[in-house]
Amino acid sequence: MAEMLNWLTKRAELSPNKQAVVFKDGTAYTFSDLKNNAKSVASYLTHIGVKQGDHVAVLSKNSYDFLVTIHALNYIGVTSFLINTRLTAQEINYQLEDGQVRYLLYDDGLSELAEQASTQVVKTVSMQQCPKNSQSSDTISNEFNLKSTSHILYTSGTTGNPKGVQLTYENHWWSATASALNLGLHDYDRWLLSLPMFHVGGLSIVYRSVIYGIPIHLHDTFDVEAVHEDLMKNGVTIVSVVSVMLEQLLDRLGDDYYPEQFRCMLLGGGPAPKGLLQQAKEQHVPVFQTYGMTETASQFCTLDDENALTKLGSAGKPLFPNQLKIIQNEQEQPINEVGEIVVKGPTVTQGYYNRDEANRETIHNGWLKTGDLGYFDAEGFLYVVDRRKDLIISGGENVYPAEIESVLKMHPKVKDAGVVGQEDDRWGQVPAAFIVFEEAIDFAELEQFCIEHLAKYKCPKKWMSIDELPRNASKKLLRHQLQKQLKE
Amino acid sequence: MAEMLNWLTKRAELSPNKQAVVFKDGTAYTFSDLKNNAKSVASYLTHIGVKQGDHVAVLSKNSYDFLVTIHALNYIGVTSFLINTRLTAQEINYQLEDGQVRYLLYDDGLSELAEQASTQVVKTVSMQQCPKNSQSSDTISNEFNLKSTSHILYTSGTTGNPKGVQLTYENHWWSATASALNLGLHDYDRWLLSLPMFHVGGLSIVYRSVIYGIPIHLHDTFDVEAVHEDLMKNGVTIVSVVSVMLEQLLDRLGDDYYPEQFRCMLLGGGPAPKGLLQQAKEQHVPVFQTYGMTETASQFCTLDDENALTKLGSAGKPLFPNQLKIIQNEQEQPINEVGEIVVKGPTVTQGYYNRDEANRETIHNGWLKTGDLGYFDAEGFLYVVDRRKDLIISGGENVYPAEIESVLKMHPKVKDAGVVGQEDDRWGQVPAAFIVFEEAIDFAELEQFCIEHLAKYKCPKKWMSIDELPRNASKKLLRHQLQKQLKE
Repeated sequence: MAEMLNWLTKRAELSPNKQAVVFKDGTAYTFSDLKNNAKSVASYLTHIGVKQGDHVAVLSKNSYDFLVTIHALNYIGVTSFLINTRLTAQEINYQLEDGQVRYLLYDDGLSELAEQASTQVVKTVSMQQCPKNSQSSDTISNEFNLKSTSHILYTSGTTGNPKGVQLTYENHWWSATASALNLGLHDYDRWLLSLPMFHVGGLSIVYRSVIYGIPIHLHDTFDVEAVHEDLMKNGVTIVSVVSVMLEQLLDRLGDDYYPEQFRCMLLGGGPAPKGLLQQAKEQHVPVFQTYGMTETASQFCTLDDENALTKLGSAGKPLFPNQLKIIQNEQEQPINEVGEIVVKGPTVTQGYYNRDEANRETIHNGWLKTGDLGYFDAEGFLYVVDRRKDLIISGGENVYPAEIESVLKMHPKVKDAGVVGQEDDRWGQVPAAFIVFEEAIDFAELEQFCIEHLAKYKCPKKWMSIDELPRNASKKLLRHQLQKQLKE
Repeated sequence: MAEMLNWLTKRAELSPNKQAVVFKDGTAYTFSDLKNNAKSVASYLTHIGVKQGDHVAVLSKNSYDFLVTIHALNYIGVTSFLINTRLTAQEINYQLEDGQVRYLLYDDGLSELAEQASTQVVKTVSMQQCPKNSQSSDTISNEFNLKSTSHILYTSGTTGNPKGVQLTYENHWWSATASALNLGLHDYDRWLLSLPMFHVGGLSIVYRSVIYGIPIHLHDTFDVEAVHEDLMKNGVTIVSVVSVMLEQLLDRLGDDYYPEQFRCMLLGGGPAPKGLLQQAKEQHVPVFQTYGMTETASQFCTLDDENALTKLGSAGKPLFPNQLKIIQNEQEQPINEVGEIVVKGPTVTQGYYNRDEANRETIHNGWLKTGDLGYFDAEGFLYVVDRRKDLIISGGENVYPAEIESVLKMHPKVKDAGVVGQEDDRWGQVPAAFIVFEEAIDFAELEQFCIEHLAKYKCPKKWMSIDELPRNASKKLLRHQLQKQLKE
């Protein structure tokens, strides 16, 4: 049974008048609106030549037009490429060429970038020019095949050339149900989306909304004041965040409390500093740490409610029915021993687009090597320690930058910290730290602080002050840019 | 991705210490207990020769042993035949032969029946003799294939020879998630199971429990006092019932109220009398009417919470992502017009075991003809009117027995009623009514009552008093037995 009714069509049949999306200004659209708009756009795109199986890119920040377009492309049955709007024209062009993209849909606000980036495509189309309220044509299919590739999303590519991760409808479906089985599903749920929809973290919420029948509170970008306001006043029950957002939200919350119906701060995007998690606990904010990536269609592991407070720092257990192993030299690692995280399950990509060699290296018998490092505790809870490629090996000892950053951020005068490895004649590598100060202090004080909290070999040997750490659109730290600065 | 971690293994990893099953006397087993017991039984059965792909029957009433056995057989990868304990030895023998069953596991309380019924099988094994606490062997597989047939369940066979409905793990999975998307999922949910597990209505709760991570409150049989007690005192949030059970529960409840956390009385097993639904509404009991069958792995449509009270008598809309059409002469019927219900979706069986002809007749392009009759209202809500084969055609008019029964049961002196068609020289067929009286009255009074509520041609032309209506183990009315009595 691979054929299936389009999810938005189905949802609009079940809950036509329920809110599908709500904006900061109170504007709202129902599932019936969203379906009609998406079908109208699909008809127009079909009319100008887009057809099933085509590769179509979208260049847009979060907006209703973007949301409508995502669904419109599903109605046609194209493979969608959602492009990171922070990329340069050259970087975008690379993806369009690599992905054999034929059409580029863009937001009018990004028309210049679209123009520069689209030298390879057949046609560029303004999303605002697609009519959203015309009659839809009969050529629109209300079914799709679960096995079809709905999206190819390029991994942020912190090193090497970005690769296109292929995701199917089936990957999205299992991801949505896996999350519901973990977090539960209440009829009054409302999910705040301020992550970009061109990343899997945001995109997955688009599908959860339709599959669960719950509204998205859609923010065009992360603005701490606007998000805080929405959490406090508008019945939001779940919000997806990364560490830096959580930090700002906790500061903004101060001594106040979120309303009772707010039940989940879903924290992804890499290992979180322990001090931050401790702070959330003290402020009674229900943080659920997750572990996931584009290759797993978002969340793969999540700490559940029962253990959210007792297993601080853990990303929980692999969601139902995912599987996860910790591997070192092809062998499963014992409890508490760090190794590479490998994953298997129905949310895992079948491979990178047109990257046979990478696929052969990465995927064996359905098990995908993530390149991340972690361990299981005795009760089967996963702790993610770092990206393998960020690992610093110093005098034969493994040093995890995230662990050092976590300690540095506990210092009251430190606002943010990034750690990378620096070549060293004696030790091979030593940790080097970039500090964003809350209030300037002498590095000697930080050195002392580290010595109190970390083994000697983990203490940074080089210190630098920086105004702001380089982060990508998902707010992930770009360690290779720090590396570059280190060499300059 | 067809391979998947066994669900009980996965659940025991996620929630080892959570209750999996609770009995009336308070005895409880955790998911970890259940897994260990099931693996132990699986090892034993493997040891005595049962192997992957075998056809294995189980003859048991609801019990912990039965539950363990269902999971044990999944660990081996056999196809299970769960046998209705009310059948005669001859009827059981028919199924065992038809299904090419090699092993019969039985409850010691049914050893005599098992002995008589098992002339064809290789071996009979007492469930009580399978050790539940030995070490499990390495031969037990922790994965299964979603496409595998996990069960073949014989349809109650109210006419003709019973047919074996093939259900896969995938059918069960989608059924469980579809139900959660409709009813929601709360971490404190507890599902009371008093329907027999050898029918799909009971069996589906076994899988929901493991997939959701919620306890079953397992009753060996439907005892109104025991069920009432469990609903009132033990935190049950959902119970699955058929009409006759609902009726008894409402009577028992009287002027009292169920506790607040009790959120769903899931009503299946055929069209429910309107009067009964009205009564539930007055007693503030949250009844969710469902429509489903063995062929759809239970629930296919269910009325949701929002419409439970405004769409009385409707079975709601097809669950996400199921599809349903109303067909007459190969054409889709307009709104409000009765036709045959045909269904499609990932919970629908791929066919009957070894019944090529029946499959060709019943299934076209994934659409299964149910043999049931219904219509959609203008807002897309399904109303099931009757079984097609129970339809009475009188003078060219369609007469639905369930509609007449529903009216008859509204009469205060009528306890139960069953209607079938009787041959008639003038009209072809006319309705004949069997009445179980609460208090004996003259049939003329009932005739008058019918004339007030029904079109003339729908009023029964023949009346009979009966002590109890014949029902199967799911409490469905066996109209063919009434037909037989009519002819005697």
